[in-house]
Amino acid sequence: MDKAQLKPDERRIQSAVEALAGFVDESKPGWTRRPFTRWYEESRRWLTEQMTEAGLAVRIDAASNLIGRLPGTDDTLPPIVIGSHTDTVTGGGRFDGIIGVVAGLEIARLLQESGYRLRHPLEIVDFTAEEPSEFGISTIGSRGMVGNLSEAMLEQKDPNGLVLREALDSIGGRTSEMAAEARKPGDAALYLELHIEQGPVLEQTGHKLGAVTGIVGIHRHRIIIEGAPNHAGTTPMGLRADALAGFCEIGLAFERHCSAHGRDAVGTIGRLANEPNASNVVPGRVIFELEIRSLDTELSDAIYAFFSVEAREIADKRGLVFLEEQLSKSNPVLVQPEVLALVEKGCASVAPFIRLPSGAGHDANQMAVIGPIGMIFVPSRDGRSHCPEEWTDYGDTTAGVAAIAAAMLAFDGDSGGSGDE
Amino acid sequence: MDKAQLKPDERRIQSAVEALAGFVDESKPGWTRRPFTRWYEESRRWLTEQMTEAGLAVRIDAASNLIGRLPGTDDTLPPIVIGSHTDTVTGGGRFDGIIGVVAGLEIARLLQESGYRLRHPLEIVDFTAEEPSEFGISTIGSRGMVGNLSEAMLEQKDPNGLVLREALDSIGGRTSEMAAEARKPGDAALYLELHIEQGPVLEQTGHKLGAVTGIVGIHRHRIIIEGAPNHAGTTPMGLRADALAGFCEIGLAFERHCSAHGRDAVGTIGRLANEPNASNVVPGRVIFELEIRSLDTELSDAIYAFFSVEAREIADKRGLVFLEEQLSKSNPVLVQPEVLALVEKGCASVAPFIRLPSGAGHDANQMAVIGPIGMIFVPSRDGRSHCPEEWTDYGDTTAGVAAIAAAMLAFDGDSGGSGDE
Repeated sequence: MDKAQLKPDERRIQSAVEALAGFVDESKPGWTRRPFTRWYEESRRWLTEQMTEAGLAVRIDAASNLIGRLPGTDDTLPPIVIGSHTDTVTGGGRFDGIIGVVAGLEIARLLQESGYRLRHPLEIVDFTAEEPSEFGISTIGSRGMVGNLSEAMLEQKDPNGLVLREALDSIGGRTSEMAAEARKPGDAALYLELHIEQGPVLEQTGHKLGAVTGIVGIHRHRIIIEGAPNHAGTTPMGLRADALAGFCEIGLAFERHCSAHGRDAVGTIGRLANEPNASNVVPGRVIFELEIRSLDTELSDAIYAFFSVEAREIADKRGLVFLEEQLSKSNPVLVQPEVLALVEKGCASVAPFIRLPSGAGHDANQMAVIGPIGMIFVPSRDGRSHCPEEWTDYGDTTAGVAAIAAAMLAFDGDSGGSGDE
Repeated sequence: MDKAQLKPDERRIQSAVEALAGFVDESKPGWTRRPFTRWYEESRRWLTEQMTEAGLAVRIDAASNLIGRLPGTDDTLPPIVIGSHTDTVTGGGRFDGIIGVVAGLEIARLLQESGYRLRHPLEIVDFTAEEPSEFGISTIGSRGMVGNLSEAMLEQKDPNGLVLREALDSIGGRTSEMAAEARKPGDAALYLELHIEQGPVLEQTGHKLGAVTGIVGIHRHRIIIEGAPNHAGTTPMGLRADALAGFCEIGLAFERHCSAHGRDAVGTIGRLANEPNASNVVPGRVIFELEIRSLDTELSDAIYAFFSVEAREIADKRGLVFLEEQLSKSNPVLVQPEVLALVEKGCASVAPFIRLPSGAGHDANQMAVIGPIGMIFVPSRDGRSHCPEEWTDYGDTTAGVAAIAAAMLAFDGDSGGSGDE
């Protein structure tokens, strides 16, 4: 086929993003469209119309995801799935998640206009509630699609007492059938997701496109530094066990250990509590949480292990007690080399690109359960996301859609059927 | 006179401390006796009886302080004042403040038993509400005695809506007469206060007594470190402006600057807020308060100035903004050399002693307005105070009373009259 046939229309993409930006809760800052709200339902009605016009058969699955399907020339093959989400955080922006759904819609329109038929069925998915939710769970819809939304999760309540199960059913889900309908490994030929980078790397390196090498695993630890809450006036410097001063030295050590591996890992101390937090009392206890993210689980483990040894030495030297607890550990999702090659080929046909890992989680984390995944990033202005200022140029977004389309076509052309996915 | 005549009675001192420890709010932890409570009034009734039995003429002044007076052989001289306070912090101990009042009572008893008469009048004072109060003010009674309790302070309310003026009047004060009755410079020949150290120095150096060289001034500053609240997963280490990591480096610099002057200064970062304080967001802002305490105002200024220069360099290097604001600056109170010599003479006649500054404020800060002050410290076990575990051995307390008595006698014998105080 002629690739020019799938040349995305920037104005149409902009128009779709702007249409969705019209369905927002104006009582909240930014472009807020929380799941299970009036604005979310309005946006889905609009999406349903658009998908239908683009020739897709639209349905809502048991987990309440909105799915538009185009048959393949060999409809017995598992589908190529393209998707993301349209819910936002409170005070969020117009691009995070949204451009991944708009990409799917645009590709469906291009296929419709060109008359070109894929061998695989194609599914465009708007996954329900990807962002952190009031139920304490994120990637709710993609979890449900792949059987990772447990009964216990379905019974979680939001602060108003709404049960997640009822929330999903209220927007067309059928949670009682969810487990039976859940997709299994092999049920997707390929999952592709276009997403904003949410970081500064593409912008700072001057690239329009990023071929995602994988989604990092996250290791979280909670640490308690115990000192003595002495009087700030009467305790000489040399006779203190100052938990906050100890934290300062330990925090710098953590930063140094995390910075020693270039782009291969990041580490953050994001949360901290200082006790008793009074201006005239030497801090007696500091509790903090740190996280390490990397595509390489062994590297994350090693960074933490070296840090922990040094932190204990610092604590001992200062007469402090160091207590540690691992809070969670998620595994990285790696993009398979053959899929990464296709994604890079798709990118290369459109614009200069670099490889980079995804430091944030996505619906792709869940979809990796049932098939290979590929992701493409487009630049975030100033590296910002989850805020009203979140911005990606429409030209860059269009380049991303073109790269996703090219990767899809390459996969559909290359792969012989269900056997090699 | 024979000094043996003023040999304090350890059992009587212990008995008085224990008696006061009986007037406590048992619904609260430790030995809690907050001012303006039932237990405070009970303890003052008991103290009034004891003072009266010891031959003192007891009254309550306009600021509600309880005062027992013994005439001098030259009753035209300004009085020697011995005092402290019997209120405690919530969850406090049995010694802080209390032993200073008990010291005065014991000295009155010793004078009564010996028949020895001082040239100066002697006043034993239980100052009202020395500890931080619900009205946001401390050293309330001693402020009132010396004219440092403003009308604005008198109108302060506690969380229950009680006005300070009414609280003082409810325990016998006459706040409408307070300003007129306030004492003026020269109205005290000498103020002596026995107090627990509230720090670890006497215990760690093995001394029973400390001759206080002065009460430190306190400089407080608030500092804001502004960074960028980026995504903790997607922002590479080298592209961050992490306010908390910057705080770590700046906090260590502060500790180093404060530790460079031996016992001449202490500095503490006691309060800190980290924003947004979420585990997956690079900290975008840290707000903290620091204080520097020293007898030497120029040293405190210099420590802050050198720290501030280095902190700005650290912030610049890290792409952070450093904002600073001085919150308060209190002047140190220095013990006059002649008084310090008397106090040291008094200590030397009893037990080995060292000189040390007071890192905490006391009623002596206020009394310094109207005359020379002297203070003696006795050891605090483990350096602790303002907690149920607060403890000073009765033998040490008795040594402190003996040293105060000796200093008082030396002053009364040495000083020729009102001209040289």
